Amino acid sequence: MSKVGVIMGSKSDLPVMQDAVDMLKGFDIEVEVDIVSAHRTPEKLFDYGKNAHTRGFSVIIAGAGGAAHLPGMIASLSPLPVIGVPVKSSNSIDGWDSVLSILQMPGGVPVATVALNGAKNAGILAAQIIGSHDKCTLDKILAYKEGLKMKVNESVKDLK
Amino acid sequence: MSKVGVIMGSKSDLPVMQDAVDMLKGFDIEVEVDIVSAHRTPEKLFDYGKNAHTRGFSVIIAGAGGAAHLPGMIASLSPLPVIGVPVKSSNSIDGWDSVLSILQMPGGVPVATVALNGAKNAGILAAQIIGSHDKCTLDKILAYKEGLKMKVNESVKDLK
Amino acid sequence: MSKVGVIMGSKSDLPVMQDAVDMLKGFDIEVEVDIVSAHRTPEKLFDYGKNAHTRGFSVIIAGAGGAAHLPGMIASLSPLPVIGVPVKSSNSIDGWDSVLSILQMPGGVPVATVALNGAKNAGILAAQIIGSHDKCTLDKILAYKEGLKMKVNESVKDLK
Amino acid sequence: MSKVGVIMGSKSDLPVMQDAVDMLKGFDIEVEVDIVSAHRTPEKLFDYGKNAHTRGFSVIIAGAGGAAHLPGMIASLSPLPVIGVPVKSSNSIDGWDSVLSILQMPGGVPVATVALNGAKNAGILAAQIIGSHDKCTLDKILAYKEGLKMKVNESVKDLK
Amino acid sequence: MSKVGVIMGSKSDLPVMQDAVDMLKGFDIEVEVDIVSAHRTPEKLFDYGKNAHTRGFSVIIAGAGGAAHLPGMIASLSPLPVIGVPVKSSNSIDGWDSVLSILQMPGGVPVATVALNGAKNAGILAAQIIGSHDKCTLDKILAYKEGLKMKVNESVKDLK
Amino acid sequence: MSKVGVIMGSKSDLPVMQDAVDMLKGFDIEVEVDIVSAHRTPEKLFDYGKNAHTRGFSVIIAGAGGAAHLPGMIASLSPLPVIGVPVKSSNSIDGWDSVLSILQMPGGVPVATVALNGAKNAGILAAQIIGSHDKCTLDKILAYKEGLKMKVNESVKDLK
Amino acid sequence: MSKVGVIMGSKSDLPVMQDAVDMLKGFDIEVEVDIVSAHRTPEKLFDYGKNAHTRGFSVIIAGAGGAAHLPGMIASLSPLPVIGVPVKSSNSIDGWDSVLSILQMPGGVPVATVALNGAKNAGILAAQIIGSHDKCTLDKILAYKEGLKMKVNESVKDLK
Amino acid sequence: MSKVGVIMGSKSDLPVMQDAVDMLKGFDIEVEVDIVSAHRTPEKLFDYGKNAHTRGFSVIIAGAGGAAHLPGMIASLSPLPVIGVPVKSSNSIDGWDSVLSILQMPGGVPVATVALNGAKNAGILAAQIIGSHDKCTLDKILAYKEGLKMKVNESVKDLK
Repeated sequence: MSKVGVIMGSKSDLPVMQDAVDMLKGFDIEVEVDIVSAHRTPEKLFDYGKNAHTRGFSVIIAGAGGAAHLPGMIASLSPLPVIGVPVKSSNSIDGWDSVLSILQMPGGVPVATVALNGAKNAGILAAQIIGSHDKCTLDKILAYKEGLKMKVNESVKDLK
Repeated sequence: MSKVGVIMGSKSDLPVMQDAVDMLKGFDIEVEVDIVSAHRTPEKLFDYGKNAHTRGFSVIIAGAGGAAHLPGMIASLSPLPVIGVPVKSSNSIDGWDSVLSILQMPGGVPVATVALNGAKNAGILAAQIIGSHDKCTLDKILAYKEGLKMKVNESVKDLK
Repeated sequence: MSKVGVIMGSKSDLPVMQDAVDMLKGFDIEVEVDIVSAHRTPEKLFDYGKNAHTRGFSVIIAGAGGAAHLPGMIASLSPLPVIGVPVKSSNSIDGWDSVLSILQMPGGVPVATVALNGAKNAGILAAQIIGSHDKCTLDKILAYKEGLKMKVNESVKDLK
Repeated sequence: MSKVGVIMGSKSDLPVMQDAVDMLKGFDIEVEVDIVSAHRTPEKLFDYGKNAHTRGFSVIIAGAGGAAHLPGMIASLSPLPVIGVPVKSSNSIDGWDSVLSILQMPGGVPVATVALNGAKNAGILAAQIIGSHDKCTLDKILAYKEGLKMKVNESVKDLK
Repeated sequence: MSKVGVIMGSKSDLPVMQDAVDMLKGFDIEVEVDIVSAHRTPEKLFDYGKNAHTRGFSVIIAGAGGAAHLPGMIASLSPLPVIGVPVKSSNSIDGWDSVLSILQMPGGVPVATVALNGAKNAGILAAQIIGSHDKCTLDKILAYKEGLKMKVNESVKDLK
Repeated sequence: MSKVGVIMGSKSDLPVMQDAVDMLKGFDIEVEVDIVSAHRTPEKLFDYGKNAHTRGFSVIIAGAGGAAHLPGMIASLSPLPVIGVPVKSSNSIDGWDSVLSILQMPGGVPVATVALNGAKNAGILAAQIIGSHDKCTLDKILAYKEGLKMKVNESVKDLK
Repeated sequence: MSKVGVIMGSKSDLPVMQDAVDMLKGFDIEVEVDIVSAHRTPEKLFDYGKNAHTRGFSVIIAGAGGAAHLPGMIASLSPLPVIGVPVKSSNSIDGWDSVLSILQMPGGVPVATVALNGAKNAGILAAQIIGSHDKCTLDKILAYKEGLKMKVNESVKDLK
Repeated sequence: MSKVGVIMGSKSDLPVMQDAVDMLKGFDIEVEVDIVSAHRTPEKLFDYGKNAHTRGFSVIIAGAGGAAHLPGMIASLSPLPVIGVPVKSSNSIDGWDSVLSILQMPGGVPVATVALNGAKNAGILAAQIIGSHDKCTLDKILAYKEGLKMKVNESVKDLK
């Protein structure tokens, strides 16, 4: 069974990152949440990154703000696909710091970056990665996309 | 067998996007290259996005420049994971247009964005997605990462 | 009779986009409002864009936020002039994402972009487009411009 | 018969602005080219803007670089739709100055802004404005869009 | 006697621009305040700019927001030194639009630009311009600078 | 007789700053050129700023690149009007550093900032400041503006 | 005994700069706080910078906002390591002005820049500089880093 | 004896980073150069950071480009002062990515950031840190600053 690791640099990122957890649970995907700080718990970072693929994870979602090194460092250590969520922290320069320090990874070590504070999309993307080889999850994504459409249609009715 | 679709908005994106193709071939992953323009061939876009998951693709890599709508529109149409490559086209405003119009997708429709001109990393990320459920590809990624390390070590010798 | 289509990616864009509707009504121009999401209702997008010019529209105003693909995709599908309104959505990076993903269209497919949240100006621009071949509307625009002048003159009186 | 005025702030803008002229001629639309500098020939600017709609123009395309005031000032003076082309001049700060000083017009006075150096699209947009009430021009735009599609299809053949 | 004209694009700019008026009055310099909108009252703009130097003004301070054309257009029309105040209006893109559309004037037509919302400094600068040939005003500026120093020294005492 | 001091942070700024000198000589204004580095010759900076107004200068033009402190520090030390020229140096971040560190002066200490590399306009602005109380220089500026107009008119002839 | 000077351009910077003071006191390092304005008290700036190394300081922390010249000018005058804290002042353009005018110092005169409003880190950095040759302070830093780790571990417990 | 470690993420950073080495050698400070990639040699990064303070280093200079994690990760692992040099790599977004991912470190883990490509200043800053407790090095810095002044004075002679 596929399992997704959702980690963040600080407990203060949880209100943003919870969206990823909720989304994954909605797709019936097992999630494990942890706090791993690249800058304050480097040994844990190292251990987490090195062993994630042998501990049953198939995707890792990592969220961090400011000079956000967590997603990139996990991508450095793990062979798994890593999804990075730039979090707009206080004292951030409008979120540009989080976005650029996650997105602009050098050749050889990709991070699958989503929008600023886009933890919801990180959850969906992790589900799509699992769905790319799991028919049951793929069907749930197709249904989810159908649901998006219906919600728009309903909002059109409200409009009129 | 997993197959990756590599598409781009214009033939002029090929010099950048070829890196994704080369990377995937290096991992022995089947690739199909095509030109699909969101703005000039919307019907083909529609058809491509709607049917990719039934045509044997497991991941789609889409590259485009300027107001880059190809990755997001494919993500709108397909349940598969879509990797977006912002291409720095001529007349781009320093690449910011491509980056933001691919990265900042609304909740519900993620695009896994890589760095500006980061097609090489798009190829690796697609391989990691396949490797997340395919032991053989995972091992190739582990070997690739080992290779990165060795190249650095060799460059250290040159230094001395 | 000329008719203007005002569409937006989400119902949450309505408070901004209502300005366009009000402006057009002030010029006695027929308006039809709808919600068309490039990312959540791609089939509707396709249908809307393909048929707008045969359904009696002469101009389309499309507003969207973040990675805003609606105006550009409508411009891809329709031969009509498309006016794009960058909406500053929550989680936008200061509006830059909406602005650049609407403005920086590739050669061949223009979008007439107005200022961030500039729906009022989108309405006026649509009226000017109609006025370019309709004397009666042109006169209303001339009168509107006269009104702008008078309001400034009145505010000068308040000043003194 | 509709006529389009193409004006620019300086003769040095001509290499960029020629694209608009060429595009319009391709659509068999009459064009009149002139140099009107907001900062160096303010009287001519005033005269041009005030009288354009009585001199047979239906659309004005205005290109300028740096602190680009020409499009906005023409829009201030004329009731016609004004298309603004931000030109990336030398000493521009990456084009941001031209883009923002044309795009961010205050409520009441719109400029239909196209991409940086996007004179080609300005020409197409002017044609679309004329096409919005002229069946013959509309058909040419439909044919032009068909041509864009065919060029992509040919480039796909080259690819293979 | 020297007189300074303080103008602004809209009455909504007054809370910012009042600082310039207050500063000038503090230096016993005659001020005349007016609202002149480049986009809504172009004739008044033209008249103001053309005649300011014959109406007894020696400096003009012009404040505007967004695509701010007032300072540059006055500088185009008048031989007097023009001080531009970028005002951070609502819907401004963080003030960048006002700053760049005032600062980045083309060669031949300078605007003396001060900081975003820096009307106070515009007032001081106008006084310095007058002081450059008027010993009495120069002495007041020297005294003002001495006052700045004393205020810092007092705040140091508070600190301890 | 009025005299203008043109100073720059480094000899490498001279190719840009020469435009100010040439412009001033064209207006028959006395110029004195010097190199004063805020960061490398702070004593000279101090001396220059403190004494400029007693040494016969009426305006100071100061150009510098990167974290450009020269214009602001001279403005701190001198009661004269100081014109700042942001120079785009190598390793500058697109000129933003020079622009912002000259423009964004705190309340109390203005710098009259011109465009990036806008030394020519700095020269004209200094002339305008002198012209604000010197009829002869004012007339030269009026003639210069007339010349700008004629050059545009000639370029129009070339066009046709 | 090592002593650190903490200075700021204005008393309004104190709420931000207090973090540096608190941090240093936590490491039992002597601190001296003062207000030194580059623009309002240039003589004090000059005196402070020239004499700091003979007055027993080993590091200087300087905070300022907007066009922030204090850190760079102190670095110009003093041979000591200078740590610059960009303060996000009101009317700042999102903090970019403070950051760039402190960071982008020319070759020869470094400022050790920390994050926007990062006074806490300035305090730690000053302690690390002292710790680089003082075993006792180094041990305190090691303990502080251990404390950071423990706080993360505790927050993980809360999570579960 | 103090020793400085100069490390960089890739051999391609050497042309920039050599300036730090040269500067330090000019101050007779021992330097050890190495390549340590946060993303490609994470174990070496870990080892280097953990042990630098016991291996005789007193300062570490770390340079990297793009999403530059090397300086921040070394700062996470080591109690020593870490100087970060943002390198403008190819495919960088104008250097903003390197600057922000080094500068905007979270509270607790500072990096002393210098200007884009500012390796020369990193070398001087490291010398200043050593000079803060080493009279002999402090004197060399005072002499170096005297030399800067003399070079400016000579360039003034050339000017005349």
